[in-house]
Amino acid sequence: MMDTATVNTATLRIDSQRLWDSLMSLAQIGATPKGGVCRLALTDLDKQGRDLFVQWAEQAGCTVRVDQIGNIFARRDGLDNTLPPVLTGSHIDTQPTGGKFDGNYGVLAGLEVIRRLNDQGIQTQAPLEVVVWTNEEGSRFVPVMMGSGVFAGAFTLDHVLVQTDTEGKSVGDELKRIGYAGATPCAPFPVKAYFEAHIEQGPMLEATDNVIGVVTGALGQRWYDVVVTGMEAHAGPTPMELRKDALLAAARLIQDINQIALDHAPHARSTVGWIDAYPNSRNVIPGTVKLSVDLRAASDDVLSAMDGELKALCTRLQDEGRVSLSMEQVVYFPPQPFHQEQVDAVRQASQHLGLSHKDIVSGAGHDAVYMARVTPTAMIFVPCKDGISHNEIEDAKQDHLEAGCNVLLQAMLQQAGVAGG
Amino acid sequence: MMDTATVNTATLRIDSQRLWDSLMSLAQIGATPKGGVCRLALTDLDKQGRDLFVQWAEQAGCTVRVDQIGNIFARRDGLDNTLPPVLTGSHIDTQPTGGKFDGNYGVLAGLEVIRRLNDQGIQTQAPLEVVVWTNEEGSRFVPVMMGSGVFAGAFTLDHVLVQTDTEGKSVGDELKRIGYAGATPCAPFPVKAYFEAHIEQGPMLEATDNVIGVVTGALGQRWYDVVVTGMEAHAGPTPMELRKDALLAAARLIQDINQIALDHAPHARSTVGWIDAYPNSRNVIPGTVKLSVDLRAASDDVLSAMDGELKALCTRLQDEGRVSLSMEQVVYFPPQPFHQEQVDAVRQASQHLGLSHKDIVSGAGHDAVYMARVTPTAMIFVPCKDGISHNEIEDAKQDHLEAGCNVLLQAMLQQAGVAGG
Repeated sequence: MMDTATVNTATLRIDSQRLWDSLMSLAQIGATPKGGVCRLALTDLDKQGRDLFVQWAEQAGCTVRVDQIGNIFARRDGLDNTLPPVLTGSHIDTQPTGGKFDGNYGVLAGLEVIRRLNDQGIQTQAPLEVVVWTNEEGSRFVPVMMGSGVFAGAFTLDHVLVQTDTEGKSVGDELKRIGYAGATPCAPFPVKAYFEAHIEQGPMLEATDNVIGVVTGALGQRWYDVVVTGMEAHAGPTPMELRKDALLAAARLIQDINQIALDHAPHARSTVGWIDAYPNSRNVIPGTVKLSVDLRAASDDVLSAMDGELKALCTRLQDEGRVSLSMEQVVYFPPQPFHQEQVDAVRQASQHLGLSHKDIVSGAGHDAVYMARVTPTAMIFVPCKDGISHNEIEDAKQDHLEAGCNVLLQAMLQQAGVAGG
Repeated sequence: MMDTATVNTATLRIDSQRLWDSLMSLAQIGATPKGGVCRLALTDLDKQGRDLFVQWAEQAGCTVRVDQIGNIFARRDGLDNTLPPVLTGSHIDTQPTGGKFDGNYGVLAGLEVIRRLNDQGIQTQAPLEVVVWTNEEGSRFVPVMMGSGVFAGAFTLDHVLVQTDTEGKSVGDELKRIGYAGATPCAPFPVKAYFEAHIEQGPMLEATDNVIGVVTGALGQRWYDVVVTGMEAHAGPTPMELRKDALLAAARLIQDINQIALDHAPHARSTVGWIDAYPNSRNVIPGTVKLSVDLRAASDDVLSAMDGELKALCTRLQDEGRVSLSMEQVVYFPPQPFHQEQVDAVRQASQHLGLSHKDIVSGAGHDAVYMARVTPTAMIFVPCKDGISHNEIEDAKQDHLEAGCNVLLQAMLQQAGVAGG
């Protein structure tokens, strides 16, 4: 090993082509005709993807361990192995019509960091680990973000092992079948910092012409089921003034729900993504409309205010006397701020590298959101084309992926400490 | 036969209990557990219902003929059989979850008129006929109002005979199978007047506390398919200002479409009865929304104005730049005024009988709407409970059904002329 003191880690850059080639190799496993990837959690294809990662990690000199929920940790020793490791990673399971980058990028960016340090013979003070979390997408098994959720104590191992897919196959049985029911207990251990690089899955970086998103936290979420009940009646013989049109009432509600988020700009979001009208017949006034509401905000104060406004909307609409409304909250994730020191490390690395960057709040859930409950955490976003993901046309530019990986490298080095640095 | 000159037809009243009992007997054929009727056109049950009607008509001394599309005409001779008959009737096919009264009432009210005249030995100058039109509902075979439509020349016999149900069975084959492929050509013949008694299928009579609806015509209809196209995106990472939310745009459209009818009160109606959002997932901003639009008005001028306003709405929404819209008209029925002399006969009979009555425009289609294209036509509406029909809970009061049938009797006598009267 060469003398690490002679290496200027500040000028160290990752191998962009190797990162890209690894992404494209992994994307072959479950490749779809439309250019995407279908690699559902704990399937044979997931096993092939995991095996490839393990092979690459071992070739890079890492020690691999697997925990009881199948999370894979690839460890590169530091000079002082009593120090808590600096951890990075993401997931390699995909949506049924998923893309090449969601999750996979974060895992392979971590691997590239280790490969590049190996190239240069650089040792860090603290160990480094790259993690592959089990079943982030939740497409085959719920809950989503399963591996990181068990790790962070959001749900118990026993609870998730008995979850089944639509064919009745359980998480526990499928883990054993593919050989990833590990022995290591799935529980938090001391970690210096957790970083997760990820495509943005939204349009903000592209719209503002920035390369790096310095992710300061994740929006909180409240999801609701709303039912609007009027009275179905024939469209022809029923005059306007005697109607109890549930879809007309729902249409007002959809507009007012949109206004809730506009009133709490810039971070608040409100979405009606799902609607179901009954009897849904051309010439019948709808009697019942069911719809979903998704409210998101960066602080719990704002999210609670939005919740109150939604309830007030429903009450006001009902008080007008044409329809009745019922509402039930079905999901709650609290807002999750990331940690100042790690967020600063990402921002400083971006500045140091001369990359355009912007503070951003993640609107979507990520493994990092659970990790932030138990360990200092930050995320690095890079643009994805048109903000599109969970789609086979998901795309990202090689130079953006490279930039994000260089930020990850610098931030990890800063947190781990460099021998002689 | 007694001397008809001695009978005062002005005080003649139908036998309410006999009418009710006939309705309940016919409702046994295809009776559903929830108290409704399922007797789809040209099924075995339809044959049983037709056979019962034919049996009753022959018992009442009528001559029965069946035309090529299966319309049944039961004729009671007049004193002068060279005169064109006064015709009444409706249909006995039902929706899959239909009621006891829709259609059946109009047929059995006509039969009761003949029975009552028989009771009193009253002869009319012109012959009387009661018609059962084939497949008014259109639940099994389209087009709807098939028998009256062929009669009036709205479509050809050849066209409808080859229409098939979901199992591939054709109208022509099913007519033969149940024995109702008649020999009489299906074409207009001279008719003095056509009257159709029907439940209102709407709430107006009940809301205004009237017993008789003097139907002055039928609303014209324009039906459209509208597609709103935005861009699907993740609800979390996509800020409000960068969204192209097709459901939000559709919600505005639904409200504006409702306003179109309010702006053309009292007879105009506008309804969005069907909506389909894609991908219809809780945490995805809808990228495409399809919806139906149903516009109705009493005059073609108003209906054309509404059509123009709908197009302007779509253009305006598209010009705002977030979504694109496409619109296609899929159905057009022109407004159909009924005939002054026959409408007056209904109104005068109601006044003569001391029944509360109200001029009303039919919002729904009926066989009478096609008949009005080729013969002097009017309709008589009676209230139905809560305005509900096409539903197994459809209900009507015996005294209202009696009142409508007495109006029918008087109107038919007035048009047919009474011997010695």
